[in-house]
Amino acid sequence: MLENIYTDLDEQYYKMVEIRRHLHQHPELSFQEWKTASFIKEYYTDLGIEVKDKVGGNGLTACIKGGKPGKTVAFRADFDALPIQDEKEVPYKSTVPGVMHACGHDAHTALLLVFAKVMNRYRDQLSGNILLIHQHAEEYAPGGAKSMVEAGCLDGADAVFGTHLWSISPLGTIQYRNGPIMAAADRFEIEIKGKGGHGAQPHLTKDAIVIGAQVISNLQQIVSRKVDPVEAAVVSVGTFKAENAFNVIADTAKLIGTARTFKEEVRNQAEQEVEKAVKAACLLYDADYTCDYFRGYPAVVNHEKETAFVKNLASAVPGVDTVEESPLQMGGEDFAYYLQKQKGTFFFTGAMPADKAAAFPHHHPRFDIDEKAMLVAAKTFASIFIQYEHAETESNQEAAVQ
Amino acid sequence: MLENIYTDLDEQYYKMVEIRRHLHQHPELSFQEWKTASFIKEYYTDLGIEVKDKVGGNGLTACIKGGKPGKTVAFRADFDALPIQDEKEVPYKSTVPGVMHACGHDAHTALLLVFAKVMNRYRDQLSGNILLIHQHAEEYAPGGAKSMVEAGCLDGADAVFGTHLWSISPLGTIQYRNGPIMAAADRFEIEIKGKGGHGAQPHLTKDAIVIGAQVISNLQQIVSRKVDPVEAAVVSVGTFKAENAFNVIADTAKLIGTARTFKEEVRNQAEQEVEKAVKAACLLYDADYTCDYFRGYPAVVNHEKETAFVKNLASAVPGVDTVEESPLQMGGEDFAYYLQKQKGTFFFTGAMPADKAAAFPHHHPRFDIDEKAMLVAAKTFASIFIQYEHAETESNQEAAVQ
Amino acid sequence: MLENIYTDLDEQYYKMVEIRRHLHQHPELSFQEWKTASFIKEYYTDLGIEVKDKVGGNGLTACIKGGKPGKTVAFRADFDALPIQDEKEVPYKSTVPGVMHACGHDAHTALLLVFAKVMNRYRDQLSGNILLIHQHAEEYAPGGAKSMVEAGCLDGADAVFGTHLWSISPLGTIQYRNGPIMAAADRFEIEIKGKGGHGAQPHLTKDAIVIGAQVISNLQQIVSRKVDPVEAAVVSVGTFKAENAFNVIADTAKLIGTARTFKEEVRNQAEQEVEKAVKAACLLYDADYTCDYFRGYPAVVNHEKETAFVKNLASAVPGVDTVEESPLQMGGEDFAYYLQKQKGTFFFTGAMPADKAAAFPHHHPRFDIDEKAMLVAAKTFASIFIQYEHAETESNQEAAVQ
Amino acid sequence: MLENIYTDLDEQYYKMVEIRRHLHQHPELSFQEWKTASFIKEYYTDLGIEVKDKVGGNGLTACIKGGKPGKTVAFRADFDALPIQDEKEVPYKSTVPGVMHACGHDAHTALLLVFAKVMNRYRDQLSGNILLIHQHAEEYAPGGAKSMVEAGCLDGADAVFGTHLWSISPLGTIQYRNGPIMAAADRFEIEIKGKGGHGAQPHLTKDAIVIGAQVISNLQQIVSRKVDPVEAAVVSVGTFKAENAFNVIADTAKLIGTARTFKEEVRNQAEQEVEKAVKAACLLYDADYTCDYFRGYPAVVNHEKETAFVKNLASAVPGVDTVEESPLQMGGEDFAYYLQKQKGTFFFTGAMPADKAAAFPHHHPRFDIDEKAMLVAAKTFASIFIQYEHAETESNQEAAVQ
Repeated sequence: MLENIYTDLDEQYYKMVEIRRHLHQHPELSFQEWKTASFIKEYYTDLGIEVKDKVGGNGLTACIKGGKPGKTVAFRADFDALPIQDEKEVPYKSTVPGVMHACGHDAHTALLLVFAKVMNRYRDQLSGNILLIHQHAEEYAPGGAKSMVEAGCLDGADAVFGTHLWSISPLGTIQYRNGPIMAAADRFEIEIKGKGGHGAQPHLTKDAIVIGAQVISNLQQIVSRKVDPVEAAVVSVGTFKAENAFNVIADTAKLIGTARTFKEEVRNQAEQEVEKAVKAACLLYDADYTCDYFRGYPAVVNHEKETAFVKNLASAVPGVDTVEESPLQMGGEDFAYYLQKQKGTFFFTGAMPADKAAAFPHHHPRFDIDEKAMLVAAKTFASIFIQYEHAETESNQEAAVQ
Repeated sequence: MLENIYTDLDEQYYKMVEIRRHLHQHPELSFQEWKTASFIKEYYTDLGIEVKDKVGGNGLTACIKGGKPGKTVAFRADFDALPIQDEKEVPYKSTVPGVMHACGHDAHTALLLVFAKVMNRYRDQLSGNILLIHQHAEEYAPGGAKSMVEAGCLDGADAVFGTHLWSISPLGTIQYRNGPIMAAADRFEIEIKGKGGHGAQPHLTKDAIVIGAQVISNLQQIVSRKVDPVEAAVVSVGTFKAENAFNVIADTAKLIGTARTFKEEVRNQAEQEVEKAVKAACLLYDADYTCDYFRGYPAVVNHEKETAFVKNLASAVPGVDTVEESPLQMGGEDFAYYLQKQKGTFFFTGAMPADKAAAFPHHHPRFDIDEKAMLVAAKTFASIFIQYEHAETESNQEAAVQ
Repeated sequence: MLENIYTDLDEQYYKMVEIRRHLHQHPELSFQEWKTASFIKEYYTDLGIEVKDKVGGNGLTACIKGGKPGKTVAFRADFDALPIQDEKEVPYKSTVPGVMHACGHDAHTALLLVFAKVMNRYRDQLSGNILLIHQHAEEYAPGGAKSMVEAGCLDGADAVFGTHLWSISPLGTIQYRNGPIMAAADRFEIEIKGKGGHGAQPHLTKDAIVIGAQVISNLQQIVSRKVDPVEAAVVSVGTFKAENAFNVIADTAKLIGTARTFKEEVRNQAEQEVEKAVKAACLLYDADYTCDYFRGYPAVVNHEKETAFVKNLASAVPGVDTVEESPLQMGGEDFAYYLQKQKGTFFFTGAMPADKAAAFPHHHPRFDIDEKAMLVAAKTFASIFIQYEHAETESNQEAAVQ
Repeated sequence: MLENIYTDLDEQYYKMVEIRRHLHQHPELSFQEWKTASFIKEYYTDLGIEVKDKVGGNGLTACIKGGKPGKTVAFRADFDALPIQDEKEVPYKSTVPGVMHACGHDAHTALLLVFAKVMNRYRDQLSGNILLIHQHAEEYAPGGAKSMVEAGCLDGADAVFGTHLWSISPLGTIQYRNGPIMAAADRFEIEIKGKGGHGAQPHLTKDAIVIGAQVISNLQQIVSRKVDPVEAAVVSVGTFKAENAFNVIADTAKLIGTARTFKEEVRNQAEQEVEKAVKAACLLYDADYTCDYFRGYPAVVNHEKETAFVKNLASAVPGVDTVEESPLQMGGEDFAYYLQKQKGTFFFTGAMPADKAAAFPHHHPRFDIDEKAMLVAAKTFASIFIQYEHAETESNQEAAVQ
């Protein structure tokens, strides 16, 4: 049956491309994906597949019930776009000024829709059920995953799988990683409240720029001295803002940055140490401050047996020539919430354009993918579903304690 | 004669107030003081005093020729206002939104005009000539003094005197200082040209904020380690600007600041060391930079004998109860250019409002003065002129080499 | 046969203890282990096992030739001690003042000697050969491994295995790790050559302490900004020395530290960046410097198939209850050189004393082990040898390119 | 009479040289100047001048009572040497290894002794009394001045004068300065109490070197940001000591330095800010510290009228060709204590060797003076005494409140 499914997916490849390009031309920002959600709903309705919309927001779930008893396996695709101006010169370029599918969520959606269509043809022969999760708002915290999980989108599922098409890995590559794979991505905002004054009279002031510069220096020591060196972590500041006349000493300075970690204890440490970095710098001038630390998505932590399962089956999937361990990715993903609730794994599917000159990183204004990666991912999903029934999996108990 | 002049000035005090309040209500920004210049021109014309306008810009000079031979003594008053919103609640509040005489130049002008009027009455008895310099644009580099001097406003003068009404010193105080009294006030603009990137991938970037923070730290060492500790100097940064998304590492950072020094060799050192501070910080990341150092007014350096002359006569001026050495002032003044050209001295005349709750520093939106200070200054000018003929003064040769 | 070997090892456990305690009482410093080498040589000679001494220094190799053809598998134990005063109160305490087996090399040696004795009994039944490597001088760079490998100690071996008894992991634990497991441990020495002077005249000096402090700050940024955050690295300075009278500015400052990395490219980066940190700090004062970077042992990088092989067999070894992935260890080990030459793996054998109050880290003056760990390690070696013949192993080709 | 005194001093110049060279060959360290004290005592005794020894330690006072009533004027010379090895090649080189008159106190003593001898000849004609203060231990805190003053050495004096021969100013120069002339010279000792550990495990430590480096950076900001820029101040660290193995993180670090200031309020600020610099740096790591601030001599603050008095008379003293304002001197002097008790002034007498290649700064192993400076100073003392009777002086009241 899997071979037939592969053949059907090959035949439906043109459809994936068609859907992906349609979505690419009509991108919608996170939490505003009303038309995309309608598109998905109509698609399933047309196919006669049971679909539920407004799940935790703009999210939808659909379910293909197999003719035989078996496990319920969930697959997730996200569908929001980014506030970036599309600078590619292609016929399917974004038609919405300043909005672009610059992370491949259009392709995630297209491949899952076509995967569903093909699997639905075989539904009588399938053991178990396929749960299709179409998630809104992956790009913008608090994200759609959390509310969809809270709305019960994983209810009844035995495992959950997801992939990200990856423009910086070659077509034909599947990258797995046991345990943490993507980072917890937090944001912090610091305001130094010094005391302004004339540039010629520093002794009457508390120079917020000098204090802020010290905060920057202190923050370096979180990673260099405070976090266990075998744990990956990053603390970066993207904004340092204190604008005054050249001869005025700054009253306040604003710093905004991000902390990336993989383990909860390291994340907690980062949160505490960011504040301490500010506190110590302010103490030198008895200055005040505010320091707010906003937790973004937690780390994506893959489950061991599901990861091994995907690793082992992937090399047999047509179109896959390389199966390798992914390096840790410092980026964040709200797929993390599904894996906190249920066992499963998240992997990368290589999608680098054949013309490497057209290969740009995710979120770049000229980002694009090799669309054949959709086929690779859809076939891998098919293989996962068909073989999962017999897989050695984590017990739910194991999953729960993780 | 001097006693009579004092009496006349007392009688004309109401006129000083009237003029000062008129100007206060109609402030004009530096280099845009066309109405004020017209006002001054008309004033002298009405009095039949020879006046020359458009001297090096909006500046004017007038001359009272004494009936007897003698020295030509110049007195200078500036007349521009500041881009500050007047927040005082007084009848003579500025009528121009966002523009205000927040530094007392209105009063400088008023007192010089009335001083001229009174002295003009005695012109037949005067030995020598009074040169009245009304200078535009003191507040904004390159200032009006330089171009007025270049236009020859000091030609024929034997000495030049100026005062600043000083809202932070009590009425009745005259503050002199030999040698440097006000600082050279320079501006620098630095742009760190790093390499931007994702906040999670610092190793692919040259973090302009981290580099900029190091520049701030390096700049501290100019004063703490590099300048002779017995020389006063300040280096302050008023703007640190690098605004990016929280998860983006800054490509560039802009720093703008000021350096204040009193000696030319220290000023040169400051200029060199500011760039070295940037260069060393950039080297750590092989980042590029621009560093522009703009020289503002040089230090105001008083001449010894003229300073002693004013110090000695001041205590006899009616209304003066305290004659004291001024501390070094880190602020700048383009009176510096007059003293580079000709011997003379610049002093402070206490003008703190009697109600100390109404006393604010210069450039403050609620700045005001005790108007009686105008009378003190005008009388001091009168005393200077009358007595200068017999003063032991620096030879022009001495003045020239300074 | 393996079961019989296990039983024999159990019976010979007393002998391991005896040898270990003898060595513990008679520790010898690195490169001075003449008596220990004699002890080992005599032991093999008494057993009639072929032994070669003075291999690359004080090292020895012995070989047990099996009765049947097969692979040659090498096992390595180190035998040097440390310049630490033994502070334990036990009967087998070191008898040499200031010298102590504070890292367990005595136990490594004892267990390998007894392992050899037992295996020798079965030699006619064994397929292949056992190569026993007794290495001197692991504790002190350049170490004994490099010269032993250069002297050909691995000639004829098909694979090499080693373990470290680990006082901070519980008895019964085997910790494996594919790829890098222990760090490259380098040393650097920096001398800042400033210009001394009187503490009251910083402007005439180049303050070597201020420059050195900046070096410390710059060094933090190697890990926080310059190394890929998913790569483990540490840069630490252990010595900062500049001693002068309280009122004298330092002419020179000496900094000595270590860099720990796992990948050659990161190591190269560390070397370059340490110098750049110094160069940038010195530039601010046009000071000179020397910066010497001494490479210690490279990282211990385990081979994939041999690591999987040990991981898989370990749980069946009597006495092993936990087989787990080791975290990266920032410490260094010259076992690295064997793995650069030949495939193999290095693993940790839990040896924490049952009385946790007696559990101290390696190199602590009260360091001790649970001696039963020797038995666990010896049985694991036996299992490795017996099963390696049938193991799926890396081709030598693979090993060579690593 | 003054002319006669000058002539006598000229004739006795050989005697000054003789005494100075004798003392130069027999230097004694601070608080150990027993032989020098005996020498002085014997000298006065031989002349029949009343002398008192053991005044506040090894100090002595002598008094010449004039034949006519008048003021009592005190003159002070110090007589201790330094722990420096004399590296000059001259016949009068120090005979005591490691001890040297490297600051000219030998000459101070010689000139005062000969001054006394000459003045004593004229005692019947003198109005008032000459109080000769020979002070021990100027070089080493707490110094001899404090205890001598406490022992009443100034009792009965109307004013006190002192000079320092100054090897870096040309012969013939007298340098005066009103108000502060020499700095308060304090010492501080800081111990950072971090938490040591292995260089590869910074996260388990509180790195005392990293904290210490931050203290150094923080200390820079005392002068660059915290002290009024028109006030001279220096904070320098001479010792940074933390010595450990290259792979060990420092448990503690020791910093020793000096703060120099001229005003008591700035001095208080320095003391507070040094501790805050340490506190803020330690806070980042929750480390402990000790910070001890030891006050050395206070600033030497000259009295206005006595300073003007010396300034005015100096140019008439034979041998004086230049009378100029001294720059602030960041060095310390316990003459400060005399001026806290009594009006007076301290001035510099140029003593640069004619051969400039032989001119070295004070405390240099090759320090020497032009001995003719002794004559200039002695004549200035004579002029001071003779003319002081008629000087306009500060009232004691004024002196007391200073």
